[in-house]
Amino acid sequence: MQMNDMILVSVDDHVCEPPDMFERHVPAKWKDRAPRLLSKQDGSDSWFFENQQVPNVGLNAVAGRPANEYGMEPTALAQLRKGCWNLQARIDDMNANGVLGSLCFASMTGFTGELFARAEDKELARVMAQAYNDWHIDEWCGGAPGRFIPLALPMLWDPKLTADEIRRVAKKGCYAMTFPDVPTGLGYPSLHSEHWDPIWRACDETGTVLCVHIGSGTGMALQDQTAPVEIMITGTPITLFNFANEITYSKFLPKYKNLRFALSEGGIGWIPYFLERADYVYKHHHAWTHNEFGGRLPSDLFREHVVTCFIDDAAGVRNRDLIGVDTLTWECDYPHSDSTWPRAPEVLWESMKDVPKAEVDAITHLNAMRHFRYDPFEHVPREQATVAALRAKAKHVDVAPKAGKGGKKPSDYKNGYCTIGDIIQQMAGAYAVAFRDGQGVDPEAARRAMLERMARVQAQQKP
Amino acid sequence: MQMNDMILVSVDDHVCEPPDMFERHVPAKWKDRAPRLLSKQDGSDSWFFENQQVPNVGLNAVAGRPANEYGMEPTALAQLRKGCWNLQARIDDMNANGVLGSLCFASMTGFTGELFARAEDKELARVMAQAYNDWHIDEWCGGAPGRFIPLALPMLWDPKLTADEIRRVAKKGCYAMTFPDVPTGLGYPSLHSEHWDPIWRACDETGTVLCVHIGSGTGMALQDQTAPVEIMITGTPITLFNFANEITYSKFLPKYKNLRFALSEGGIGWIPYFLERADYVYKHHHAWTHNEFGGRLPSDLFREHVVTCFIDDAAGVRNRDLIGVDTLTWECDYPHSDSTWPRAPEVLWESMKDVPKAEVDAITHLNAMRHFRYDPFEHVPREQATVAALRAKAKHVDVAPKAGKGGKKPSDYKNGYCTIGDIIQQMAGAYAVAFRDGQGVDPEAARRAMLERMARVQAQQKP
Repeated sequence: MQMNDMILVSVDDHVCEPPDMFERHVPAKWKDRAPRLLSKQDGSDSWFFENQQVPNVGLNAVAGRPANEYGMEPTALAQLRKGCWNLQARIDDMNANGVLGSLCFASMTGFTGELFARAEDKELARVMAQAYNDWHIDEWCGGAPGRFIPLALPMLWDPKLTADEIRRVAKKGCYAMTFPDVPTGLGYPSLHSEHWDPIWRACDETGTVLCVHIGSGTGMALQDQTAPVEIMITGTPITLFNFANEITYSKFLPKYKNLRFALSEGGIGWIPYFLERADYVYKHHHAWTHNEFGGRLPSDLFREHVVTCFIDDAAGVRNRDLIGVDTLTWECDYPHSDSTWPRAPEVLWESMKDVPKAEVDAITHLNAMRHFRYDPFEHVPREQATVAALRAKAKHVDVAPKAGKGGKKPSDYKNGYCTIGDIIQQMAGAYAVAFRDGQGVDPEAARRAMLERMARVQAQQKP
Repeated sequence: MQMNDMILVSVDDHVCEPPDMFERHVPAKWKDRAPRLLSKQDGSDSWFFENQQVPNVGLNAVAGRPANEYGMEPTALAQLRKGCWNLQARIDDMNANGVLGSLCFASMTGFTGELFARAEDKELARVMAQAYNDWHIDEWCGGAPGRFIPLALPMLWDPKLTADEIRRVAKKGCYAMTFPDVPTGLGYPSLHSEHWDPIWRACDETGTVLCVHIGSGTGMALQDQTAPVEIMITGTPITLFNFANEITYSKFLPKYKNLRFALSEGGIGWIPYFLERADYVYKHHHAWTHNEFGGRLPSDLFREHVVTCFIDDAAGVRNRDLIGVDTLTWECDYPHSDSTWPRAPEVLWESMKDVPKAEVDAITHLNAMRHFRYDPFEHVPREQATVAALRAKAKHVDVAPKAGKGGKKPSDYKNGYCTIGDIIQQMAGAYAVAFRDGQGVDPEAARRAMLERMARVQAQQKP
């Protein structure tokens, strides 16, 4: 097997929502209250919804920038690579990277729809979450058959409503929904509470996977503001160790046989340690804790109920037998800063080149297809789905990094290097920037202005 | 090489302090204010110092109990295996387990001397911390030459005082001191603050290792009280991932070439993942963060400055080349519940039997000897130091589990299994138990009573 023969399905990418996304999915009665992307006085854009703003539409949407221009500064849509928000450009970028399929997380809503959940009017929140899901399933994924694994948002404030939504979107072919790693971090009951049973049951019935993305409940580790920002970036994926630990010892996992959780952007190299540790603790302690799983080990439960994924993780691939090859999937993380785009095949192949073909196929696409009930080959013939075949279709796509913003110099940071505090200051500063005249006050006018501007951006960025 | 040929040095064990420990190390002027072990009305014992109590003298000192009688209930000294607190019995238990050398953490003071640090009178606190260190070095370790690696307590409220203590104990042959994983968790400045520089400098000068034990700064993860207690036990060791992450990106590690940290009870199976992740983040992000280490990688810094250890960690041993064999040491964790005593050689050999002898020797004793400047062979001939030779000296030691407390039944727990909340309730209940008549009011009388009782216990438990 060669690198070019791989068929790549990424189970963790991100879409920066286009400003017209609510146009065709919100009932007329609610249209004026839909989120709008508005311009701010510093030239950045910000989503505006029920007196909430979500600055940084381009937060971490850095694909296509040179590495010295990465960062967390707020940006305007016009500064993003078009593949971040435009469907056709996204397909081009996937082809250029040899990627067949992609599961895309939301940006403007938060990973689990927190923007809507925070609205006081819960009927409005439900309408907008459903509109989001319809846009995502019918327009984003539906616009390119076979190229996307659809992923729905929950309505976390109401588990029964969420269960209904799981069943509604399953009928449309969507078998994945987001869920937070630490529900209590968002103000909801403990994972171990029966509160969530309606969601577990609906997933069990429909074969829906709950995708638990890093940062979805507890957010980033921002406590020590004087620390270099790399500490936050390095430590965030393994926060899902805690989630894996919680569910593996939970009482609901053995109860719902078909319930599965995906550890989205969690990495895999730590899992052999986790499974060994969990089994050790079970064997050493269950005689006094009386915690039992019908005589089975925590590692058995993990392998049956958890879908794992990685970007670039040679230690995890080396120890795939200890994890369970059937659990493993791969991700690209486009357009975030940890992404390997546009060299994902080259990077992945470094750890795959000595792996037997059957296992490469399992890890790169077969496991994702089975877990997410996704069959790209209904739409794309297998021989057209390889790295080589997709890249051949993308000869017109320019993947060279585009400089433009200049990047920050060491002297732009108080200590000469970027700390977690510097990032927090940038975020706070973004919130403090006023909207442009009239915007935020007359959202309908602002919306129209934004759409016109959007058309200009699209025209400018045409490939 | 055979199991019986291994020479075992454990870098993480625990001593339950004997009640007479302050007798010979506190100047007369301060004697009345030394901590005392007092009896409580439920038959348990509790240390008493400056209106603080430390219940559960036997917290987790469960060696020698059957597994169904493990647990967190407070205990009296008489209920502990004698090796927990008596030097000769400890040596017997080490011999019976084939263990040559041991580094013992404090119990009653907290891992980093928090009991003393909380005292309002900081002169008193300094006197007691020094008395503790003198007892530990001169009496506990000094009483059995070649069998212990001494470990001192810091005076965290004053880094300069701590630096002086590092130099003072180094002159007595002690090259290890405890330090908390999250200083801010104890109310001190950030790890990244220059506040700690005197300590880093003193360690650098004297070749002293800072031993960072799990639970020493942030304590256990107790948030979700409805969760099975196994989640706390499974997840605690890997909390040192965060500490490793903090120091690897710190500005002080490259500055003090000889400064080293030991990740005590941190496990090792997660380290290949951590080092790969840290290098990935450095390579992806340093161009915009401007965080540099003279062109070296985070993994290089880790391998030069960090001492790792494990109890039983087959995944880590399998991947020892990715960690760095020179960093690896072993631990027994006697008398805590995760300990492999008295079958440590058998358990360890399962992951060592296919490892080349030179690496087994490095992991089992040579690395510990080098990092801690400890030479047991000055006192114990090498051929008398093996598993087989030590066990031959311990034929009189009864290692069979001793039932006695009965253990809790499933029905003793609200949900039929032990939750984190159950543990918290037990701890709170222990604090609420009154001292026996007169004790805590007349500590000197209580102290005498305790010493008399102690003599009875010693007489009863004679091997």
